[in-house]
Amino acid sequence: MTTSPAPRRSLPVEDIGRLVLRCPDQPGIVSAVSTFLARAGANIVSLDQHSTEPVGGTLLQRTIFVLPGLTAARDRLEAEFGATVAAELGIDFHFTEAAAFKRVAIMASRTDHCLLDLLWRNQRGELDMSVVMVISNHPDLADRVRPFGIPFVHIPASAANRAEAEQRQLELLQGNVDLVVLARYMQILTPDFLRRIGCPMINVHHSFLPAFIGANPYQQARDRGVKLIGATAHYVTDDLDEGPIIEQDVARVDHAHMLADLVRIGADVERAVLSRAVQWHCQDRVIQHGNQTIVF
Amino acid sequence: MTTSPAPRRSLPVEDIGRLVLRCPDQPGIVSAVSTFLARAGANIVSLDQHSTEPVGGTLLQRTIFVLPGLTAARDRLEAEFGATVAAELGIDFHFTEAAAFKRVAIMASRTDHCLLDLLWRNQRGELDMSVVMVISNHPDLADRVRPFGIPFVHIPASAANRAEAEQRQLELLQGNVDLVVLARYMQILTPDFLRRIGCPMINVHHSFLPAFIGANPYQQARDRGVKLIGATAHYVTDDLDEGPIIEQDVARVDHAHMLADLVRIGADVERAVLSRAVQWHCQDRVIQHGNQTIVF
Amino acid sequence: MTTSPAPRRSLPVEDIGRLVLRCPDQPGIVSAVSTFLARAGANIVSLDQHSTEPVGGTLLQRTIFVLPGLTAARDRLEAEFGATVAAELGIDFHFTEAAAFKRVAIMASRTDHCLLDLLWRNQRGELDMSVVMVISNHPDLADRVRPFGIPFVHIPASAANRAEAEQRQLELLQGNVDLVVLARYMQILTPDFLRRIGCPMINVHHSFLPAFIGANPYQQARDRGVKLIGATAHYVTDDLDEGPIIEQDVARVDHAHMLADLVRIGADVERAVLSRAVQWHCQDRVIQHGNQTIVF
Amino acid sequence: MTTSPAPRRSLPVEDIGRLVLRCPDQPGIVSAVSTFLARAGANIVSLDQHSTEPVGGTLLQRTIFVLPGLTAARDRLEAEFGATVAAELGIDFHFTEAAAFKRVAIMASRTDHCLLDLLWRNQRGELDMSVVMVISNHPDLADRVRPFGIPFVHIPASAANRAEAEQRQLELLQGNVDLVVLARYMQILTPDFLRRIGCPMINVHHSFLPAFIGANPYQQARDRGVKLIGATAHYVTDDLDEGPIIEQDVARVDHAHMLADLVRIGADVERAVLSRAVQWHCQDRVIQHGNQTIVF
Repeated sequence: MTTSPAPRRSLPVEDIGRLVLRCPDQPGIVSAVSTFLARAGANIVSLDQHSTEPVGGTLLQRTIFVLPGLTAARDRLEAEFGATVAAELGIDFHFTEAAAFKRVAIMASRTDHCLLDLLWRNQRGELDMSVVMVISNHPDLADRVRPFGIPFVHIPASAANRAEAEQRQLELLQGNVDLVVLARYMQILTPDFLRRIGCPMINVHHSFLPAFIGANPYQQARDRGVKLIGATAHYVTDDLDEGPIIEQDVARVDHAHMLADLVRIGADVERAVLSRAVQWHCQDRVIQHGNQTIVF
Repeated sequence: MTTSPAPRRSLPVEDIGRLVLRCPDQPGIVSAVSTFLARAGANIVSLDQHSTEPVGGTLLQRTIFVLPGLTAARDRLEAEFGATVAAELGIDFHFTEAAAFKRVAIMASRTDHCLLDLLWRNQRGELDMSVVMVISNHPDLADRVRPFGIPFVHIPASAANRAEAEQRQLELLQGNVDLVVLARYMQILTPDFLRRIGCPMINVHHSFLPAFIGANPYQQARDRGVKLIGATAHYVTDDLDEGPIIEQDVARVDHAHMLADLVRIGADVERAVLSRAVQWHCQDRVIQHGNQTIVF
Repeated sequence: MTTSPAPRRSLPVEDIGRLVLRCPDQPGIVSAVSTFLARAGANIVSLDQHSTEPVGGTLLQRTIFVLPGLTAARDRLEAEFGATVAAELGIDFHFTEAAAFKRVAIMASRTDHCLLDLLWRNQRGELDMSVVMVISNHPDLADRVRPFGIPFVHIPASAANRAEAEQRQLELLQGNVDLVVLARYMQILTPDFLRRIGCPMINVHHSFLPAFIGANPYQQARDRGVKLIGATAHYVTDDLDEGPIIEQDVARVDHAHMLADLVRIGADVERAVLSRAVQWHCQDRVIQHGNQTIVF
Repeated sequence: MTTSPAPRRSLPVEDIGRLVLRCPDQPGIVSAVSTFLARAGANIVSLDQHSTEPVGGTLLQRTIFVLPGLTAARDRLEAEFGATVAAELGIDFHFTEAAAFKRVAIMASRTDHCLLDLLWRNQRGELDMSVVMVISNHPDLADRVRPFGIPFVHIPASAANRAEAEQRQLELLQGNVDLVVLARYMQILTPDFLRRIGCPMINVHHSFLPAFIGANPYQQARDRGVKLIGATAHYVTDDLDEGPIIEQDVARVDHAHMLADLVRIGADVERAVLSRAVQWHCQDRVIQHGNQTIVF
C-alpha cells in the first residue's frame, strides 16, 4: 500500500468542539468565525478551509477549538452563531463535540476482515465512534462479533425478500444511528432505503474506482493484467459505485498472483481504506461537495 | 508513488546471455535447458519461470547465464538448442546478449519530462539501450535532445498529413530499431503503421488504466474526485489504451489539487513508470502472453 | 506503508515440495538439481537462486516442485539426493513439504495487535503455519486468544525470576515447535535460552532498524523529528536488535503526531511487517547468510 | 518510494502574500490575525497552525492571503502589523510575497542527479525559486548547467585549501542568496562558513537518518542487510547529519542489489526528497523549532 495518509492527531476529547461550515466564498469569514469563537472563550486549535473556485465559489471550513464547559455551552453557542455570523454571511453550519461519538451500525455478509478490523480498532480506542449494532444477512459472523459486546442481528436478505428485509433493517436503524457502514455487505440496497435511512452510508468497493465497476472486480483486474489492485471507500448514492470517494489505496500484484491471492492481498487494502474513511467521517473531516469529498 | 518495484540487479554485461522461451508446460524443461547450458559451459545466474495454468498451460521462462566467449559462440548455441532441446519439447525461444543493447527510437511531442528522463537515465548508464533517434511532430525539443548527442528529427504530423508522416517515420525506423517508445507522443498511429514498424512499441498513458481511457485523463480524474492518480506503460496494440500493461504506479492527490497540479504530480509518475517499463523490456524481462505481460 | 511487497502466490499445497540448499557456487548446479528432480518424476514450478559473489561465493537456492505421492517418497528422495548430487557438489540442503505446516509458538506481553493479527490471518488460512501455543508473561490477553482454539499459557516473567521463567518456557517449547515468534514480547531472553530453544526465533522491533535501537523507539523518533517511522522483523541473535533483518516497512508521520499517534500508526506497520516475515519463514523463503537474509 | 506527500496546490502568485509567525500560545491569535488581514482588505486562502504543547507552548502559524496591490502595500502592512497585533501578543513574524522568489545557490560536486533535477524542475516552473548560481568544487558539470542559462562557478575545494575556498564562496554568496542548497556537495563546510553565510542551507544525506550517519551510507546499508534504503533532506547545522529533518523517503531493495544498484536506486529517492524540501522551503512552509521542523 502507499504510505498511510496522515492518520491525524487525536486530541484528548474533553471540551474539544468542531465547527463545520459551508458558505459562499467572500473575504472576512475567518475573521468573523474566529472572533466569534474568541469572544465565546474558545481557543482555536486548527482551522482548515477550501474554496472550490479561486473566486466566487463555495467555501468549506472546519475549525477545531477548545472551550471549557463546551457541553453545557453548546446549544447557546449554536443559537448565537446562527443568529449572528451565520445569518450575516449565509453560512450553513453545525457544531459537534469530539466527546459525542457518532452512533454507527455496521452491515456485513460473510467475509469478516473489514468488520473485524473496525471492531478491533474501535476496541483499542482508535476510532471515534460507538458501534451500536452489526446487521448481517448471514448468521456466520455472530460468534466473532459478540465477544466485542456488540449486538449482532441476523436479517436474511436476498432479491426475493428485499422489501421486507429493508423494512426490518430500517426499523432497527432509523433514529438510532448517525452512520451506516457497509463492510462488504453483498446485498443491493434500494434507493428507497437510502432515502429513508436518514443518515450517511459509507461503502467499501474492492477496486480502485472508477476501474472495475460492478461485480467481481478482482477477476476483472486479473483479466486486464493490471499491476496494482486497489480499494475505494465512498459514500453510498443511488448510483452504484458512483458515490463521492472518501479514500483509496492500492497494493502491487504481478502475473504470478492468482485470483485467490488478489482477494487476500486486496483484503488488507480494503480494511485499511475503510477504517480511515470511517474515522475521518466520525471526526467530521469529510465534507461532501457535489460528487466529490473534501477531506481535511 | 508506491515503493519502486525492484529495479533489479544489473550484472556486468560481458559474456552474459539470456535465453527467453515459451512452450507447452511439461516436466523436465528446467532439466533439459539447464543441462544443455551446462554442457555448453554456461553457468546459470538466475532462472525465472511462470506457468499460465497449474496443469496444461504455457510455460514462460527466462534464464540468465554466463558463458565465456558468448559473442563468438552465440549462433552455434542457438542452432544447437533449436535442433535439440527446442525441437524435442516444442520450444519457441531466443537467445540475447546483455552486451548487445537494443536500438531504440523515442517519439515525443511537446512535453519533455518522459523524453528527458529516458535520455538522462541512459546517459548515466541506467538503461540497457542505445537511443538511435528522437522523432517529434514539433520542433520544440530539439535543443534539449541534441546535447545528448542523439539525432532529433522533426516530422510534422497531424490528422491532415497522417499517411505521409507515417511513411516518413517508417523510412527512418524500419530495420533500424528494435523498440519504439512513445514518450507522450500525442498523435494517433494507424494500425497500418503498427503492422509495418516490425518491432514492439511501448506507450505511456497518463492514467491508471483501465480508469480514464481516452483524452484528458487528469481532467477526468479531477471530475471523478479520485484520491490517487496514476500512469500506465503498455505495449501498443490496435486497440487504443488496451494493450498489455507492463507497469503502473500512483501518487496521492486531494481536493486542493487543481488540474495543473495533477499534471505536474502525474509527470513524475509517468516518467518513473515509463523508464521502468523500457528498462525491463530492454533486459528481456517482459513476455507478452495474450493481453497480459509476465515481468520477471 | 510502502506497497506491500509481493505476498507471493500460494499454490495448493498437496504434493508440493521445496528444496532449499546452500553450496559453493560452481557451474552445473541447476542442471544437477533439476535433472535429479526430473528423474524422480517431479515438475519444477519455480526456482530462485542467489550467489553471494560474482565468482567463488556461496550459492543459495530454493526450488519448488510438484511430485505426486511426495509424502511417501520424501525420505527416499532426501537420502538419494544426499548420497548423489549433494555429496558430489558439497551441498547443504533440506526438503520440506508445503503441506507440513511449521509448528509455531507466539510469545506476547500486553499489547495485542501483532498477536491478534497473526492469529486472525492464520484463521483465515493466510499463513502456512500451525500455532500450537501462546505464551505470555501477563494474563491480559487470554480471553482474546482462547476463542481461536489455541492454548494460552501465562508464565510470569521479570528480571527477578528470569531463570525460572525461561526454564518453564523451555519445557513447553523444546521439541514442540519449529519457530518462536516474539509478537511484542517485552522481556529479555537470555543467550542461554536462545541456545537451548533449538529453533529459529523471529522478533518485531518497533523502529526502522538500525535507527532507534533500544528502548522507546517511538519516543526517540519523535525527539529526532523523523518524517517516517518504521518497524523491522528480524531473527533473534545474542545481540539485541542486531539480528538478520527479514522485513521492514514505514509509515509517514509529521510534526502534529504526538507519541500516542506514533504508537498507533506504528502498530499497523508492526503487524504488517511481522506477518510477512512469519509467512515467508514458514514457506522456507528466507535463508540466513551471515548477518543478512536472502528472501526468495 | 512512498506516495509522494502532497505537493500542495500552487496558486497563481500575483497578489498572494504569506504571513509566517511564532508566538507564545494563547486564545485569540487567529481572531487578531484574521481581523487585521480582513481590515487590510486581504482574503485568507489558507491558515495552518501548530502548537508545540497542549497548553503553554509555542504557536507556529502560516497564513496565505490574497491582497490586491500587495507589492505596494507590503511595507505598510508589515509596519502596522508589527505595531499593533505583533506588539500586543509578542509575535515574531515575517510577511513574504509569493511572487518574490527566493534567490538560491546550488553547490554540487561530481554527481549530477540532484542538481539536474532541481534545474529541470525549476525550468518547468515547478519550483518557486530563482537559481542565481551553481558552485562546484569540480569542473565536470559545467556543460550540463550552462544550457539552463545559469552561471556555473568552479571553486576547487579540498581539506588543503578549505579556508581559501570558503572565502571565495562567501564572496559570491553573501547578500546575494536567500538559500544555499547542497546537492550532493561532498566537501565539509566549516561552522565558521555556516555562521557567515547568513541564510539557511539545505543538505541531502543519502540515508534514512539517523541510520547510517557518516560516510558511505549505501555500503553501510548493504552491510546491515536493510530492506529499505532512504534519503533525508535537512537544514545544515554545526553537527554533521544532525540538523532538523525536512523530508525523508525510502525505496525497497533486496539481497540481489549490489552497491551500485543501491546508489542508482537511491539517486531517485535523493532527488525526489531534495526537490520537495527545497520547494517547501521556498514556499515558506517549513518552520524550524528546536531540532525539528514543522512542515505546513
